[in-house]
Amino acid sequence: MADLFLALIHHPVLDKNGQVVTTAVTNMDIHDIARSACTYGVRRFFVVTPVRALRVLAERILDHWETGFGSTYNATRKEALALVAIEPDLDGTLMTIERQTGLRPTLVVTSARSHPDTISFAALRARLASQPVPFLILLGTGWGLAPAVLQRADLRLEPIVGPTAYNHLSVRSAAAIILDRLYGAR
Amino acid sequence: MADLFLALIHHPVLDKNGQVVTTAVTNMDIHDIARSACTYGVRRFFVVTPVRALRVLAERILDHWETGFGSTYNATRKEALALVAIEPDLDGTLMTIERQTGLRPTLVVTSARSHPDTISFAALRARLASQPVPFLILLGTGWGLAPAVLQRADLRLEPIVGPTAYNHLSVRSAAAIILDRLYGAR
Repeated sequence: MADLFLALIHHPVLDKNGQVVTTAVTNMDIHDIARSACTYGVRRFFVVTPVRALRVLAERILDHWETGFGSTYNATRKEALALVAIEPDLDGTLMTIERQTGLRPTLVVTSARSHPDTISFAALRARLASQPVPFLILLGTGWGLAPAVLQRADLRLEPIVGPTAYNHLSVRSAAAIILDRLYGAR
Repeated sequence: MADLFLALIHHPVLDKNGQVVTTAVTNMDIHDIARSACTYGVRRFFVVTPVRALRVLAERILDHWETGFGSTYNATRKEALALVAIEPDLDGTLMTIERQTGLRPTLVVTSARSHPDTISFAALRARLASQPVPFLILLGTGWGLAPAVLQRADLRLEPIVGPTAYNHLSVRSAAAIILDRLYGAR
């Protein structure tokens, strides 16, 4: 069984006009994705932003729930947020995982857009179940991961498709569905 | 193929101590669940609260995205939020669906807790695919739907289970996973 890591990327990502931007870290993203990560057995959930002030903000949110008022107010939230780590960039994230596991993780990128060369959810699920190595799945904020990040991927996961042509899930919802497709009871 | 309706219930729901309360309507719930509903072909997403001021607030959020600044700023959000309707209670929601479809919907409740008498995702998926009648799935805010609502159900959907014992998904994540399990590509 693989060790699955998850990272929410705030830079470089695209805005709605296709420009590379840095998005703000939002409280709700951290909470929702941490809770999904905890449900599906993710080893660690990285919140990745190059903006120092936003890393400090994110650490303060975590402190509130881990040792502050929130830790006694809602113990289940504390458990989920204990999975969260803050990193400045993708390279730092990769190094942290390599330090923890002794291996460079297989890098999996996600996108709402279709692409000729993707791995299916079923195929990735099978690899996670059979290969005892670390995998890192990247989620993009804004309008998705920038090409510079997509190009670094070892694997590109197929997009989530429903019965309609609408493909604008929130990153929180996409994270939940991805984890359920990879680890949910079948 | 069934017509699927979704309702987010803000009263009566439980708080963390098991008391029946009314929760606040939150902007993020409306946006995230509307986007998931739009992705998976839900007919209408009802935001249900007995608090008049919160219904007015919710209508103002919808106006912003449907005809205000947001409608031109982000057209995909407009498309999703067009699915949202505001109702004061479950009975009003049922009547609205009956008026629109000519039929009383089959009422499906959801819960994170296990229960001896539930319908599996696979069984509900099969019914939705084969029965051309309306179904209404209820999602609870707070710590879940109150017993008074659970007791009215025609069907109780099995809880979402991952590989861990942690069962505290956000209602936004749960909604996304439920819709994907019922309508996602398999």
